Amino acid sequence: MAMPGIEYRSVSCDIWKEVADIVGEENLSKDLIQLASYSRDIWTRKTIEMQMGNLPAPPQLVVWPQTVDQVQRLVRFAAGKNIPIIPLGAASGVCGGTIALKGGITIDLKKMNRIRNLDRKSMLAEIEAGAVGEVLERELNHQGYTLGHFPSSIYCSSFGGWVATRGAGQLSSRYGKIEDMVSSVEVVLPNGELLRTRAVPRSSTGPSLNHIFIGSEGTLGIITAATVRLWDFPKAREFQGFMFPDLHQGLDAIRLMMQSELKPAVIRLYDPVDTYFSSKGTLEEKPKPKKLGLSGNRGLVRFARKVLPYIYSPGLPNRFLQSQAKASKMILIFEGEPEIVAMEHRQAKEICSRSGGIDLGEWPARNWWKHRYRVSYTMSKVFDLGFFVDTIEVATVWDNLENLYYSMQAAISKHALVMAHFSHAYPQGCSIYFSIAASGRSLEDRLATYDSLWKDALDACMQAGGSLSHHHGIGILKAKWMETEEGGANPLLKALKRAVDPHGIMNPGKMGI
Amino acid sequence: MAMPGIEYRSVSCDIWKEVADIVGEENLSKDLIQLASYSRDIWTRKTIEMQMGNLPAPPQLVVWPQTVDQVQRLVRFAAGKNIPIIPLGAASGVCGGTIALKGGITIDLKKMNRIRNLDRKSMLAEIEAGAVGEVLERELNHQGYTLGHFPSSIYCSSFGGWVATRGAGQLSSRYGKIEDMVSSVEVVLPNGELLRTRAVPRSSTGPSLNHIFIGSEGTLGIITAATVRLWDFPKAREFQGFMFPDLHQGLDAIRLMMQSELKPAVIRLYDPVDTYFSSKGTLEEKPKPKKLGLSGNRGLVRFARKVLPYIYSPGLPNRFLQSQAKASKMILIFEGEPEIVAMEHRQAKEICSRSGGIDLGEWPARNWWKHRYRVSYTMSKVFDLGFFVDTIEVATVWDNLENLYYSMQAAISKHALVMAHFSHAYPQGCSIYFSIAASGRSLEDRLATYDSLWKDALDACMQAGGSLSHHHGIGILKAKWMETEEGGANPLLKALKRAVDPHGIMNPGKMGI
Repeated sequence: MAMPGIEYRSVSCDIWKEVADIVGEENLSKDLIQLASYSRDIWTRKTIEMQMGNLPAPPQLVVWPQTVDQVQRLVRFAAGKNIPIIPLGAASGVCGGTIALKGGITIDLKKMNRIRNLDRKSMLAEIEAGAVGEVLERELNHQGYTLGHFPSSIYCSSFGGWVATRGAGQLSSRYGKIEDMVSSVEVVLPNGELLRTRAVPRSSTGPSLNHIFIGSEGTLGIITAATVRLWDFPKAREFQGFMFPDLHQGLDAIRLMMQSELKPAVIRLYDPVDTYFSSKGTLEEKPKPKKLGLSGNRGLVRFARKVLPYIYSPGLPNRFLQSQAKASKMILIFEGEPEIVAMEHRQAKEICSRSGGIDLGEWPARNWWKHRYRVSYTMSKVFDLGFFVDTIEVATVWDNLENLYYSMQAAISKHALVMAHFSHAYPQGCSIYFSIAASGRSLEDRLATYDSLWKDALDACMQAGGSLSHHHGIGILKAKWMETEEGGANPLLKALKRAVDPHGIMNPGKMGI
Repeated sequence: MAMPGIEYRSVSCDIWKEVADIVGEENLSKDLIQLASYSRDIWTRKTIEMQMGNLPAPPQLVVWPQTVDQVQRLVRFAAGKNIPIIPLGAASGVCGGTIALKGGITIDLKKMNRIRNLDRKSMLAEIEAGAVGEVLERELNHQGYTLGHFPSSIYCSSFGGWVATRGAGQLSSRYGKIEDMVSSVEVVLPNGELLRTRAVPRSSTGPSLNHIFIGSEGTLGIITAATVRLWDFPKAREFQGFMFPDLHQGLDAIRLMMQSELKPAVIRLYDPVDTYFSSKGTLEEKPKPKKLGLSGNRGLVRFARKVLPYIYSPGLPNRFLQSQAKASKMILIFEGEPEIVAMEHRQAKEICSRSGGIDLGEWPARNWWKHRYRVSYTMSKVFDLGFFVDTIEVATVWDNLENLYYSMQAAISKHALVMAHFSHAYPQGCSIYFSIAASGRSLEDRLATYDSLWKDALDACMQAGGSLSHHHGIGILKAKWMETEEGGANPLLKALKRAVDPHGIMNPGKMGI
């Protein structure tokens, strides 16, 4: 069967048979529709290309192993024949990390989704890579725990994907990023050998092997499981909103809260443009659900609809919005032990008030909480309307944060309407999450705009000393900036890659290595 | 000049001259006395060997570079001639990590000791590797900050050494280990190239390069500087002692405190033998400075003197002590913001009381605090008395902690008198710090006992699923167990080593790579 827009390289009968011997015939597929659905993640560039009728070349086989031993045998088989391997969890990445650039076998880990071990005394769980986020979290909740990792993609992303991309959840200010949670990893190396680091709280036994594989995006091996810390399911949760006269004061408040050792589960400051759309530029906010709710739920769609008339030349509307909008809205959520939650909430209110914030009560934070996962399900509508949307998440230290924000805002403003929020805060710095909407008179125009936009945005980021990515990873999209980001270390990563994977079979073409 | 017990390989005039051209004649030495003083760290085995009249072969040159450029030129020069390089901070290691196993050039970084940059807004400082601990901490204190890193060696260890060995300070339960503090590193690679990672709070730009170099013990490059987080100098400090009827209840109390998200700066539980020596086995304790103070200060010397008659066959006295001693003493110190300190102190007292602890007031903790660095200065007296002493620090998760403790205690008890304390606690587990004292009728006997003791202790650790080292590192001493610890990954570390340092010039023979 042929499919328009797909270049399909079929797999030989021999290979099909040998792989079927490993996983069983019900656990592999060379069906073209199946393969096509594995040809991309949700990288915006590929969505535009798909609208143009082009899909990336798919893998030649998709397999669903059920055991580590099967994964090892698959890797040994592929290594012996120099067949590329693409490990895949739920393909919710936004940087092209699971695209089969050189064909090969996509190993979908979703059938390896057990909680292998739950150590209540040490509050650790060993979890297989293919567990889907929300299912995993609910299972842990039933046991009285939370993992504390809540990406907006939680319904459509996998535990292994979180580890492989150094992901972050919406509550990271309290629970940390995934790298703060992992205490051991299990990896099938490119030669088929199994590596299992010891689950220990800390050690000084050389370089951290966990940290070599966390964020490796399948280029150094297949993460089949990891042991992560658990938290007691929170006994209390409190909500708080604040409006600041300007962005600077809002950022100061975040910094002071984090440096006072408060651990708000959620701390999000919307920049003036984002705040303007959700709050009409006033310093107060009341529950008006029909008018509000832009931030973090269906915001992108509404934002895009509103700006459709202006989007072909975004410079002017950006300048207008950026000059009109001043106030910045913050939402805070505290959770955990009731006494600590109450103390932190009170201290946070004091800091925000001293920094010029106006108390909005709990409603804005409650509203965000209710709709917090909605954004991941609204993308296709926007593309149907003739736009594209994307997000760019970077990070830097406090002393450089406004510089990075304004540099990148200026770079992006030439190409797209842009708003941002600040979340994932730390005592030393913060991430910036730009949401962008752009269009073009033709699909070709859109693609050109897309490429220029990302180039200018990430050039500006590198120039301003930021980090390319806070939690989405690198994939194909950001690979060419890795050399700059790593400050002389990309040759080292390449050497590591060559040493571990001399034939380059593991997820080739990703991360620039 | 010849020196007994030292095998000395002199350096050629050419090499001396070329190195002098790089660093200046006042910044290098081939004086034999100087070289001899650089031939060892404070690894106990080498102290015994020194008593036997043998020193390890020294390096052929010691140099004191003052700039990163000089370090790069030194490395390029050495790489061109395949001369080994041994980076050295203050040589206070206890595992042989700075011994010039193959001769070569020791690069002492003590003249690179500046705080290059102090970013008050981001609470980050970029510090050069050669800064000596106590001097650095006092400089930061003058600026209103603390680094929070207080190893007992703080007067004689260097910032770079802490990073190179993944060190921990006595207050790690609050401030973390050094790897929790580092946000960027500057490393001269084995080819002389400079690597500088970006100082960002978190990122998802591939594997963590910081974590490849933290703990690398000079085998992958020379760490010349790192950027670390700072903390406000604590405004309040509170002290607390508790006595528990047995070890198990004391450990339960630590676990519950850490899992309740308390962050005591110090949390130390002495095992019954240690408690017996310092508290005479009673459940109460009053200030008796002449009788007490064993724990953490001059304890080893007194312990050693008392047990001299029994030490040649330690099995019996160990059994006696282990059967007689039951109670376990805990000290707690809280510091930071007054309101948080008070709340944590109160919650900790509640947890300890519920776990069966008897409140000893603040005195035991205050006494420990006063003498907390003394242990590093009492070693030589013990050796003069005809003993040797050493410490073995391991770590594991809570569910395995008592198993690891009793397994290793049994293994060590055959060879040495042994006591332990539990410190460096985490929600997921804890370290165990064994203090041992042993002897032998001859120096040869002592050396044989030393080797058997470590072999049995670390075999037992590996068997019981612990980590070889919590914060002292690997060096030569623990290298042969790395393969087991790393769960299949030592070939990977070796491949990384070969890729980064193909000629093996960087601190050869350490960590088994």
